[in-house]
Amino acid sequence: MKLYGDSRSGNCYKVQLTLALLQREHEFVAVDILQGGTKTAEFLALNPNGKIPTLVLDDGRSLWESNAIINYLSAGSPLLPADSFQMAKVQQWQFFEQYSHEPYIAVARFINKYLGLPDDRRAEYEAKQQGGYKALAVMEQQLAQTPFLVGDSLTTADIALFGYTPVAHEGGFDLSGFPHINAWMQRVRTQPGFIAMESLAGC
Amino acid sequence: MKLYGDSRSGNCYKVQLTLALLQREHEFVAVDILQGGTKTAEFLALNPNGKIPTLVLDDGRSLWESNAIINYLSAGSPLLPADSFQMAKVQQWQFFEQYSHEPYIAVARFINKYLGLPDDRRAEYEAKQQGGYKALAVMEQQLAQTPFLVGDSLTTADIALFGYTPVAHEGGFDLSGFPHINAWMQRVRTQPGFIAMESLAGC
Ligand SMILES: N[C@@H](CCC(=O)N[C@@H](CS)C(=O)NCC(=O)O)C(=O)O
Ligand SMILES: N[C@@H](CCC(=O)N[C@@H](CS)C(=O)NCC(=O)O)C(=O)O
Repeated sequence: MKLYGDSRSGNCYKVQLTLALLQREHEFVAVDILQGGTKTAEFLALNPNGKIPTLVLDDGRSLWESNAIINYLSAGSPLLPADSFQMAKVQQWQFFEQYSHEPYIAVARFINKYLGLPDDRRAEYEAKQQGGYKALAVMEQQLAQTPFLVGDSLTTADIALFGYTPVAHEGGFDLSGFPHINAWMQRVRTQPGFIAMESLAGC
Repeated sequence: MKLYGDSRSGNCYKVQLTLALLQREHEFVAVDILQGGTKTAEFLALNPNGKIPTLVLDDGRSLWESNAIINYLSAGSPLLPADSFQMAKVQQWQFFEQYSHEPYIAVARFINKYLGLPDDRRAEYEAKQQGGYKALAVMEQQLAQTPFLVGDSLTTADIALFGYTPVAHEGGFDLSGFPHINAWMQRVRTQPGFIAMESLAGC
């Protein structure tokens, strides 16, 4: 199994974290997105949408989209509930992550941390703040009721939202007003096998 | 089962189409998004993220995010493959839809059709064109190889992408250069139980 990724991407970290929690071996292939690594013909043959993370199985089949990858890897493990409503709730939080959280928090972080907040993107950066805080408020409300997003134990819904929430400050978000999110991050960090994003050399 | 929705939303149409294909009864509750219907305390108690579609089961539990809802409704039916890699591929296309297709095509359509392309959103509208065409090209490439997005039969991946692809022209997209997408839309339209978006009074 080969994972194509970039060391700075939270979408990629989700997959690394899942593999670590499941103690699954894999080969990591570094792709530099700022240098066009996702736009080569070779890479587009694996993922026509030109994005990392992309997983390639030993039989050559490829799978892309971070949340589809982590659900696939977790099938049959405690990270993915078998009950159909619980499974739907996991997906609900993952679609929320991709639609209402990542486009604000991850993009603000990218503009600030990787592009150095250039003048011509400052308005876009500022426009991201409101949507990002709204997403954090939705998470806070759920985590006030349950220790993890879908009930009592860690699922791939938590892994999806752990991609960018711990680095939200790099996008200008102040998490000090979100006690339940902070307590949840602590719970995730103490799971057996946990690895931090900063500790990864690649992906 | 109650479905909260708005008549103009393709995200909501996905759920209506799934219910029609599965021949499942439900009650429809109209929510007018342009009049703040998703921002009332009553609605936020069902979906703290304030968006339709939102499904409420007979036992009172609620589920939101269109693609999580259609997968939940389709569990155990031919619309959702049982094989874990095929299931992951369905999710891959659904996350692609929410991240790389809907934010361009549905948003361009909204600005054009519902807001009447106001001057202060023209630049945003134009900026959506490139991303939308890129998403269509990715679909076209897959549909040149397989009749449906995940192999030989209709799945919830097709339903997800059928939410906004047939109305893409309302967002300024010309589909005439995409023969495989057009053939695929015809295949979806001839499924037993199919309903068109335009035929729906509500949702
Ligand atoms: N929805 C995708 C998003 C992946 C994504 O946006 N990846 C970025 C890096 S974090 C990328 O590959 N960007 C390169 C590009 O779009 O050209 C997922 O969850 O995997
Ligand atoms: N990711 C969501 C998107 C839903 C969505 O954006 N719904 C729109 C109507 S199409 C809405 O409720 N907008 C009202 C709002 O955001 O205030 C899904 O797939 O269900």
